[in-house]
Amino acid sequence: MGKRGKAMVIFQPSGRRGEVDKGVSIIEASRQLGVDIETLCGEKRVCGKCIVRIEEGFFEKYGIRSTKANAGDWQKEEGKFITPDKREQGYRLGCCAQVQGDLLVFVPEESRAGKQVVSKAARAIHIDWDPAVKYYYVEVAEPTFEEPTADLERILDELNHRYGLTGLDIDLLALRNLPSQLRAGDWKVTVGVWMDREIIRVFPGKHESYYGMAIDIGTTTVAAYFCNLVTMEVIDTVSMMNPQCKYGEDVMSRITYHVMHPDGLQKMSDDIIQGIQGLVTQACEGTHPPKINKRNKGNDKKATPEKAEDNQYLCLNPSDIIDMTIVGNTAMHHILLKLNPEHVGLAPFPPVAHKGLDIKARDLGIGINESAYVHVLPIEAGFVGADNVGVLIAEEPYKKEEIQLIIDIGTNGELVLGNQEKLISSSCATGPALEGAQLAFGMRAAPGAIERITIDPDTHEVDYKVIGRDAWKSYSKPEQVQAKGICGSGILDVLAELYRSGIVLKSGRFNPQEKSKRLRKNSENNQPEFVIAWKEETSIDKDIVITQKDIRQIQLAKGALYCGCKLMMRRMGIEKVDRVKIAGAFGTHVDREKALIMGLFPDCEIEKIISVGNAAGDGARAALLNRRKREEAHWVSRNVQYIELTVEKDFQEQFMQAMQIPHMKDEFPHLEGLVPEEILNQISKSQGLKLK
Amino acid sequence: MGKRGKAMVIFQPSGRRGEVDKGVSIIEASRQLGVDIETLCGEKRVCGKCIVRIEEGFFEKYGIRSTKANAGDWQKEEGKFITPDKREQGYRLGCCAQVQGDLLVFVPEESRAGKQVVSKAARAIHIDWDPAVKYYYVEVAEPTFEEPTADLERILDELNHRYGLTGLDIDLLALRNLPSQLRAGDWKVTVGVWMDREIIRVFPGKHESYYGMAIDIGTTTVAAYFCNLVTMEVIDTVSMMNPQCKYGEDVMSRITYHVMHPDGLQKMSDDIIQGIQGLVTQACEGTHPPKINKRNKGNDKKATPEKAEDNQYLCLNPSDIIDMTIVGNTAMHHILLKLNPEHVGLAPFPPVAHKGLDIKARDLGIGINESAYVHVLPIEAGFVGADNVGVLIAEEPYKKEEIQLIIDIGTNGELVLGNQEKLISSSCATGPALEGAQLAFGMRAAPGAIERITIDPDTHEVDYKVIGRDAWKSYSKPEQVQAKGICGSGILDVLAELYRSGIVLKSGRFNPQEKSKRLRKNSENNQPEFVIAWKEETSIDKDIVITQKDIRQIQLAKGALYCGCKLMMRRMGIEKVDRVKIAGAFGTHVDREKALIMGLFPDCEIEKIISVGNAAGDGARAALLNRRKREEAHWVSRNVQYIELTVEKDFQEQFMQAMQIPHMKDEFPHLEGLVPEEILNQISKSQGLKLK
Repeated sequence: MGKRGKAMVIFQPSGRRGEVDKGVSIIEASRQLGVDIETLCGEKRVCGKCIVRIEEGFFEKYGIRSTKANAGDWQKEEGKFITPDKREQGYRLGCCAQVQGDLLVFVPEESRAGKQVVSKAARAIHIDWDPAVKYYYVEVAEPTFEEPTADLERILDELNHRYGLTGLDIDLLALRNLPSQLRAGDWKVTVGVWMDREIIRVFPGKHESYYGMAIDIGTTTVAAYFCNLVTMEVIDTVSMMNPQCKYGEDVMSRITYHVMHPDGLQKMSDDIIQGIQGLVTQACEGTHPPKINKRNKGNDKKATPEKAEDNQYLCLNPSDIIDMTIVGNTAMHHILLKLNPEHVGLAPFPPVAHKGLDIKARDLGIGINESAYVHVLPIEAGFVGADNVGVLIAEEPYKKEEIQLIIDIGTNGELVLGNQEKLISSSCATGPALEGAQLAFGMRAAPGAIERITIDPDTHEVDYKVIGRDAWKSYSKPEQVQAKGICGSGILDVLAELYRSGIVLKSGRFNPQEKSKRLRKNSENNQPEFVIAWKEETSIDKDIVITQKDIRQIQLAKGALYCGCKLMMRRMGIEKVDRVKIAGAFGTHVDREKALIMGLFPDCEIEKIISVGNAAGDGARAALLNRRKREEAHWVSRNVQYIELTVEKDFQEQFMQAMQIPHMKDEFPHLEGLVPEEILNQISKSQGLKLK
Repeated sequence: MGKRGKAMVIFQPSGRRGEVDKGVSIIEASRQLGVDIETLCGEKRVCGKCIVRIEEGFFEKYGIRSTKANAGDWQKEEGKFITPDKREQGYRLGCCAQVQGDLLVFVPEESRAGKQVVSKAARAIHIDWDPAVKYYYVEVAEPTFEEPTADLERILDELNHRYGLTGLDIDLLALRNLPSQLRAGDWKVTVGVWMDREIIRVFPGKHESYYGMAIDIGTTTVAAYFCNLVTMEVIDTVSMMNPQCKYGEDVMSRITYHVMHPDGLQKMSDDIIQGIQGLVTQACEGTHPPKINKRNKGNDKKATPEKAEDNQYLCLNPSDIIDMTIVGNTAMHHILLKLNPEHVGLAPFPPVAHKGLDIKARDLGIGINESAYVHVLPIEAGFVGADNVGVLIAEEPYKKEEIQLIIDIGTNGELVLGNQEKLISSSCATGPALEGAQLAFGMRAAPGAIERITIDPDTHEVDYKVIGRDAWKSYSKPEQVQAKGICGSGILDVLAELYRSGIVLKSGRFNPQEKSKRLRKNSENNQPEFVIAWKEETSIDKDIVITQKDIRQIQLAKGALYCGCKLMMRRMGIEKVDRVKIAGAFGTHVDREKALIMGLFPDCEIEKIISVGNAAGDGARAALLNRRKREEAHWVSRNVQYIELTVEKDFQEQFMQAMQIPHMKDEFPHLEGLVPEEILNQISKSQGLKLK
């Protein structure tokens, strides 16, 4: 495809420009030129998020003539998302339009991939001290004619004599440094030993602090905890968007990207490795005194004076990071390690490996200490990865008598149920709706996203709050609000409020009896929709609405989750759970009451529903600071029983049932007081569920 | 030093030419341009081997004007080797002369580094089969919903079930290949496991042969044994000159090169790694059918039809080499691994490490199987390296009752004495004289080197044989002989014959009573010398002689060796040894009788003096084919007692005694019949030793 040669492409409003090969898609061009365009589906032409506008004319400033024809032939998939009217104006899907000549491409705000608001601060958890790497101080005698023993054996003998360490190996690169370090330290050195097995660092004199990093690779967000391995304190938490987002929003899109592009795995792996390297650099820079000049120039590095004071300017470098642990879902795990993720995406979803892996950082291309290992935690199954293992070793449900239900809601829901007797896990295809994706105005938890909503039951007036602005809408002028979409936590609020105020019925349908200027029919498809934010309150120059289709999407997600929980309870033979733990960013932001109203998970006392934050990251941290946690991770990953729910014979029926909003009163005794009596009564009387 | 810019240098007779930076030495220029000039001392300006001649004039063919002035200032060290007369003719030392302008440099034949004749064929030794890497065939079930276990654990379970292997790790690169190999093999694969610990290769179907390579890195020669790890047969033996020879002939010169050049270690290490890679390639190419086209063009690759037939065209590639073992002396060991060899060259000579090391081939930059390990055998001491450990595990003196004396004569003499009760080792500074270096006409065992000599006791006429020509001189026309110098085995012959025929006295001095046209005074220094080959029999256009100084050098070498042996015997409290084993190329070529006449080592029955060939290489092979030999190597390297002989208080006296040629009759009962009665009587009456 494509003619020979190159074409100039300019993206607006960012102004980024450059030459690309003719024949590439506009999305590919945007990647090459560093422009972030939303591509939730990974260029499968099904999400419609990557709408751009081709500007026509001669642009003197750039010396190019841009025409609609230069964007290649119209594809039939585009018709699903772009009206003939819009098409006339030059709108195209970035994944369908091809660069065939010079182009000026405008990226509307709703197509721009926003900067995620990340909430992965380290939580205080109890961990016993027993890191995989430990430092030992040794003093040895100088060689003499009587005792001309080699440098290494001198050290080994002393490590054996003073610390009882035997049979140690040494990494070649550490061995290369040994003679100079030993002499620089006047025969007194500190020796870093990994797992009581291998010397990985030798340096002159006595060193009592050493450092490691625990990393949680989420599909969307990557968080790194920079830890002092002696005091166990978290020196800094740094995070970033997963740079693979440009290849697709969810794991399936990324797997698809790999399958469809021969170099896809390499590119995605390189991106995450580079990303991790960036976090390493950022964390280390935070321990250096601030560079005054740079700060004046508006550098946004986090070397604030407060932090620097806390750290007393430790001035650490990547080579000081002597150990690293990593968790992530199975796809992220495989892509990081460049293991073919294809089969994880195909039934029966077998991963390449379960067991935890110790890999030299240098073999992964991660620039920390040159001899350090990276420990990647084990995975349970194709859809329950090392991140879930992290959650388990952080929460330790297998050590408790009470029955816990642990829910980790990302793009997939990962579920664990059980106690010290038995532990089962499963996953449910919630889809990305609970994260705000695939909805008309869904978006990630980024500035401008509506995250909290209330609807007045009487007036049906809406109030809401957007990320990035402390004041609620009702306390702001419309033009100050700049709403852009609705994120995951907002979605749940909307639906719970719509339901509680009677605008939406238990079936999920809009109440046809309801009269409100906010409830209207869409002019194009004649479907009902409810206006959350009026055009003048938004930055996208249109009303933000929730549509009937959106509600169906959320119902599917919550149905999958609830049905998963119920089927697991049935497998365990239990009627109720003692505690519900919600892990992940969703858990941090979600309103527990509203989650219960929505019937997101089985009934539980409100105070027994707790958010455990980034428990996956906590697990990575636990494994960093305590090597026995790695064994525990191995044990639990092989002993938690993975259950494939979709093969249960009444799955379909259960799923349909679970989509109801909310569930029967007797199934949810704790709803009392949360939902008006008349609505609960109405539900209790109703039977079945009608879906269009 | 040096002015800015480049200069053109042309070397004759090779015609190699190119631009080099002004200021570099002619030796450095020769390296850059691929010209081999002898530099025995590693540019320390002491060996005088690198004499070249600067040609003066305008050379139209090259468009340059070459002048003596363009070769930089005369250095005082040059005066030791170049007479004023020769200086006038343009002769310089290549290590002293600097390129300051365009130069035409003539390299006389005696300065050209010849191509070594290598004799390191594999010897038949008994080895029990137990390689470090073993292949296992497994068949596993396809994943199902009921059993969606990961690819790796599927394999691990089967390896455990069928072969009892537990707790296996897997190399990341092997893991990356696992999914595709498993599916390509329809769930039947062969798995290569290293040391029952780590999976390093997985490939489809059943494979019953696998391959490894054992390498002996000598200071001068590198030999590689390409082995079938199942049948244990040696498929091929390939060898080469150690490419580090250009940095100096002996280990001390190389250590000096490292100390004096910041990038010296890197360069020497890179060279040997590249060299090993070349051997790997060569060995693999030998298993492919000959390429007819190339052979017709005079390609000298060894893919002879006979060999190919033997191998039935195995068509192996470097990735088929799944294991490698390496031995070498301590300096070669350190340089290979890029461990600082500096301290090995300074009293008390501590090495960086003793223990055997398992290193990923990829970490060394050796391109064999990407997940394979290289096992480097342990070293005993600064001057008794992994090569000697190789000799020990091949010869196993620690398993015998008889007391063996094992001598490995390279540039250093490495000595081991003992039996199952006790084993001691030492080294003695024989210097390179026994290898032909540092003598007026000494050279390596290369074509043109005199390797055998007889002197008629009556006429004192000399006959000799040169390497590369089957016929002895007396059966050749003078101009056919083309002698160039004397190599190690020839040296010993010369002296034994000179002694046996009465030309040299027991003290090592030429017999002043002797009248022969071959025994004359050197016209320059007035010292006596004996002509071995007349000018017309040589390719260097001058008489090849042995000088009084040469004899002193050999006396020093043989004295060091004999004294070492005697002191070790004293330490052991023994009067005689049951067996003498001579390892290395020297052992293969040396005439046992003449070695005994020379008193190279203590008296022993002739038939108990045996050559064990490249026993170091045999040891490497044993460790390749039997992993327990690695443990044995570790054990012996720590249990053989290293003795530093030079610190014995009567060392000096013993050494002086040992220089006599030969020793007392009662010390050498087995000399009877080898040396004329009257000479033996004369010795028995003589006392002491007079050296100039």
